[in-house]
Amino acid sequence: MGGTGYTGVELLRLLARHPEVQLTAITSRAEAGTAVGQMFPSLRGHVDLAFVHPDQADLGACDLVFFATPNGIAMQQAQALLDAGVRVIDLAADFRIKDVAEWEKWYGMAHASPALVAEAVYGLPEVNREQIRNARLVANPGCYPTAVQLGFIPLIESGLVDDAQLIADAKSGVSGAGRKLELGYLFAEAGDNFKAYGVPGHRHLPEIRQGLAEVAGHAVGLTFVPHLTPMIRGMHATLYARLKKDADVQALFEQRYARENFVDVLPAGSHPDTRSVRGANTCRIALHRPQGGDTVVVLSVIDNLMKGAAGQAVQNMNIMFGLPESTALEIVPLLP
Amino acid sequence: MGGTGYTGVELLRLLARHPEVQLTAITSRAEAGTAVGQMFPSLRGHVDLAFVHPDQADLGACDLVFFATPNGIAMQQAQALLDAGVRVIDLAADFRIKDVAEWEKWYGMAHASPALVAEAVYGLPEVNREQIRNARLVANPGCYPTAVQLGFIPLIESGLVDDAQLIADAKSGVSGAGRKLELGYLFAEAGDNFKAYGVPGHRHLPEIRQGLAEVAGHAVGLTFVPHLTPMIRGMHATLYARLKKDADVQALFEQRYARENFVDVLPAGSHPDTRSVRGANTCRIALHRPQGGDTVVVLSVIDNLMKGAAGQAVQNMNIMFGLPESTALEIVPLLP
Amino acid sequence: MGGTGYTGVELLRLLARHPEVQLTAITSRAEAGTAVGQMFPSLRGHVDLAFVHPDQADLGACDLVFFATPNGIAMQQAQALLDAGVRVIDLAADFRIKDVAEWEKWYGMAHASPALVAEAVYGLPEVNREQIRNARLVANPGCYPTAVQLGFIPLIESGLVDDAQLIADAKSGVSGAGRKLELGYLFAEAGDNFKAYGVPGHRHLPEIRQGLAEVAGHAVGLTFVPHLTPMIRGMHATLYARLKKDADVQALFEQRYARENFVDVLPAGSHPDTRSVRGANTCRIALHRPQGGDTVVVLSVIDNLMKGAAGQAVQNMNIMFGLPESTALEIVPLLP
Amino acid sequence: MGGTGYTGVELLRLLARHPEVQLTAITSRAEAGTAVGQMFPSLRGHVDLAFVHPDQADLGACDLVFFATPNGIAMQQAQALLDAGVRVIDLAADFRIKDVAEWEKWYGMAHASPALVAEAVYGLPEVNREQIRNARLVANPGCYPTAVQLGFIPLIESGLVDDAQLIADAKSGVSGAGRKLELGYLFAEAGDNFKAYGVPGHRHLPEIRQGLAEVAGHAVGLTFVPHLTPMIRGMHATLYARLKKDADVQALFEQRYARENFVDVLPAGSHPDTRSVRGANTCRIALHRPQGGDTVVVLSVIDNLMKGAAGQAVQNMNIMFGLPESTALEIVPLLP
Repeated sequence: MGGTGYTGVELLRLLARHPEVQLTAITSRAEAGTAVGQMFPSLRGHVDLAFVHPDQADLGACDLVFFATPNGIAMQQAQALLDAGVRVIDLAADFRIKDVAEWEKWYGMAHASPALVAEAVYGLPEVNREQIRNARLVANPGCYPTAVQLGFIPLIESGLVDDAQLIADAKSGVSGAGRKLELGYLFAEAGDNFKAYGVPGHRHLPEIRQGLAEVAGHAVGLTFVPHLTPMIRGMHATLYARLKKDADVQALFEQRYARENFVDVLPAGSHPDTRSVRGANTCRIALHRPQGGDTVVVLSVIDNLMKGAAGQAVQNMNIMFGLPESTALEIVPLLP
Repeated sequence: MGGTGYTGVELLRLLARHPEVQLTAITSRAEAGTAVGQMFPSLRGHVDLAFVHPDQADLGACDLVFFATPNGIAMQQAQALLDAGVRVIDLAADFRIKDVAEWEKWYGMAHASPALVAEAVYGLPEVNREQIRNARLVANPGCYPTAVQLGFIPLIESGLVDDAQLIADAKSGVSGAGRKLELGYLFAEAGDNFKAYGVPGHRHLPEIRQGLAEVAGHAVGLTFVPHLTPMIRGMHATLYARLKKDADVQALFEQRYARENFVDVLPAGSHPDTRSVRGANTCRIALHRPQGGDTVVVLSVIDNLMKGAAGQAVQNMNIMFGLPESTALEIVPLLP
Repeated sequence: MGGTGYTGVELLRLLARHPEVQLTAITSRAEAGTAVGQMFPSLRGHVDLAFVHPDQADLGACDLVFFATPNGIAMQQAQALLDAGVRVIDLAADFRIKDVAEWEKWYGMAHASPALVAEAVYGLPEVNREQIRNARLVANPGCYPTAVQLGFIPLIESGLVDDAQLIADAKSGVSGAGRKLELGYLFAEAGDNFKAYGVPGHRHLPEIRQGLAEVAGHAVGLTFVPHLTPMIRGMHATLYARLKKDADVQALFEQRYARENFVDVLPAGSHPDTRSVRGANTCRIALHRPQGGDTVVVLSVIDNLMKGAAGQAVQNMNIMFGLPESTALEIVPLLP
Repeated sequence: MGGTGYTGVELLRLLARHPEVQLTAITSRAEAGTAVGQMFPSLRGHVDLAFVHPDQADLGACDLVFFATPNGIAMQQAQALLDAGVRVIDLAADFRIKDVAEWEKWYGMAHASPALVAEAVYGLPEVNREQIRNARLVANPGCYPTAVQLGFIPLIESGLVDDAQLIADAKSGVSGAGRKLELGYLFAEAGDNFKAYGVPGHRHLPEIRQGLAEVAGHAVGLTFVPHLTPMIRGMHATLYARLKKDADVQALFEQRYARENFVDVLPAGSHPDTRSVRGANTCRIALHRPQGGDTVVVLSVIDNLMKGAAGQAVQNMNIMFGLPESTALEIVPLLP
């Protein structure tokens, strides 16, 4: 559902090469009838479908439907699909926040399906793998929440840091804003420029706070400042926390993620490039304690369209259907 | 041989996922001992080798050796490998020009192995597929020559255009210059800037002229102007030729490339984006006759590191070893 | 009139520092009431005005009105201003094409003021300086037409080249498209990408043909292919023409532009960078005859917002009002 | 002294248009004899000098010498110039750190002129204007130190925040690294990429700590993390501090900088773009308290080559010579 945005075309890139997937329908109201390869020439020869109007798509016959739609769509349609036995992964925000009132405040609309919010599983495999396996409805995490949570979780789970005073300074490539007509995302506006935005409050803040609170067992204090950086893809979170006692932070992260295919803890002293994960589903993390002090600095990078969106959605799909978790995700990042 | 440049890391990206390839050695004099994944974090988890000094690598035991070295290296080492029964693909320019004197003029050195020049097959599969199949030594084409030749060949083969007055105005992303320390390739120099270079004469000119002369059956007249454009990957050739008689140019190209997996002739009226082939081995071509006149404008795009270098090298390898030509090259371009 | 686009903000940048100019009104329908410095923080402290609705601006009291509006606006309002004794410079295309039928074909609307088309002076000072001096109405040239004409004019005036077969391969930064909400100009679409566009026919083609025909004394044959390159500002025209007889092209250009402040003929063998004119009103030109043949290659660079728009408009204003032609234009380009 | 780097060419851009400055010599060992306009075509027509070998330049006859040389040069030559009655501004780091042992540790060399370190005035006009006025030797601040100090100073001077736990997360355009041949600054490496660097310790850390300690009256605790962002110019510091008591931070900054020409405190709720100061000497600052909490977030942007280097040097020169402080610095930023 909704194949014309960046998340949609990225999903198609992955699904087109997935050996266990058969694409049957890609919907778009505005582009119904247009060949996918006409709108996205990169998909010529890989996806032969045309966009169909959602009403014309026989989605009830699918095993799985992805929603790569704007916020507020999936919450209206998920129930009918679930009733028809179709499993659902929503790449938008409709089912991410358990507190419906909080969701309604940040997203500025009434929630159409509060009951499903309770059922939905938050699709961060490194935390919720078992629940994802059997979920009917998965809420795929946001890009900032993925990069920030993966960087903070070991510190918070272990109780090593003061979780009342966390800082997440995050930087996103422009594709994170979607394929959206706003002046600020024009090349001549966003190019050769750097800026913070949403400092008073960004929609990903409650999502991150919820995730961190869950692993902490209590509410956390978080200052979250997102920035727009002049690159197409990529996200870099720089995280700051104060250690309450001394610890081997490097070992802590290596152990926490030892069995995770898509989290790569770099050797001590590293500085991950966002391009080192370009086009891949990996989160790379490096740990620092500047000047040996008690401030831990975590550097966490993802490709916002992959581990931050479509890649994680395919990872969740693989888990839900009992496939090897890396199927179609064994992609070598594109460098340079 | 020579795995630390952009062509080298791109080859590794492809070979790491090639089901019929086993990487046994990657050489570098300067980086011997360094893990490949340390120098190129994008390859962490995909390539476990360390660079070895060329003298330490048991290349004689390989089926194939790629040279991704500077010009002038392969010509010194190819003979010994061939004598040992190893087949060779040179991604540099050592064996591309049949006229050794011409080569020496443009490359400014004496050729160490003129006899092999005669034997080497020019690795443009769309022209020389059969000779490649049995070649011991393949000279992998340059990036500009690939984009320009694929765009001109149908017009010249068919005798439709005045081949004494061809113009190739070509634009390359900065990675085309290699991973090379020159001021002009710094971000703060090449960024937000556009320039022509090498207008008096570029090394790819004799290579293109040779290839076009071969299909024409006689020498051609070509003006070739390369430009540097502020993008990482991608190459766009805009080609101009005068029709000698009326013809359906669109049909001509569609027929010429109908069975080619890696040349995609776009619908009439198209303007290919370089990003539509980012990371893929495809050349996309569009044809125009502005205002219905007798000037044909051919737009030809490739990824300079793929169809313009490493991708074409893997395509040649597949042909040489009787593998399906697309093995490890069925990559969906990365867009955005 | 119309201060919210890139041409408008660039005009304000220049006029704010012009010692003989007093800005009295900047109009915008959509932004009436907004402080200019709020919309364009770069102008904070330099321009204290707010945008006013065109109906509220007392334009009749001005000495000069610039139209930095979309095509089709100036032609409706210029007559009334002229009648009130106000001189007018239109930075849009309304008065550039003398053949009204041709204009209507390319711009897709009926012309509201054909009589003024006849009166308007085409504002290329290097050709029409004397007429500009006394003009009531100046049609400021387009960006491509400026770069292409300045590069071809000496060759055509001198009758040295075959003007039936001219080729102009031109590349523009994205700001050339204006501050316009179209998908193709998003950072994530136009970034790290290169493409041709408008090959079947671009609106600047008739403007260039008209200008070249005027200096030739007869119609010329021109193939014009514009491209979009991933930079913010800058334009590079690569021009191809065949010499009919031998000539010292370098000397020809140096003499033609010897007294021009804003055309800089570079030493033989040069390749101008677009950034060498970033933010300045200069056109830099270099001449080549590759391999000493009879094809002349002219490289011509401008800043599309300066010599290609606002800078040239200020140059025209200076001429019209008898000011030194360089007033407020003695800007050192911003490099890097 | 040293005119071939980015700081040098930027100084020349400013000085060429400074009505009270006569450029008499620009030195370069490597480029002696080369016309400045040949190396930097942007300066053609604005600077007519050629580079001279430092030994050939009659620097003793100057009123002022700028050092735009690598670290370690000015400390060897400043004394002789001062003895000759020449005033000196060093844009490198030789005289920035008062604690010579600390300087030697971070810069990895013995200091050649410790006595001058004591005499040198740290050239941040917003703090040291009066001392600068009479200084013989000014140590021009680093780029990060300028952006970070201007953002923190009002908070620390006022004693409002816990200065034991300051965080400065800073992002720099690539020109901040200088015109330097390192792989990481190549377009194909730094483009479309974002990374932190120097997290264990960056040379600007002691400089910032020294400046903040001076206004605090005691040592401060600071975590400083610099990042490289894919733009040419521009620097964005995101600063975090905890309020010890409630305060009107917006008013505090507005009052502190009310009489400063080059510090612009934006309206509450703003997010400054780095491009809003491109090419200008302005520092723009915005204040936030996310969710009304006790964490203050300061957003501080400069052009790293202007207020972060050459612009501030000219500002210091103006102060030293009793000129209006804005002379030659009333530049409207280049946008887009």
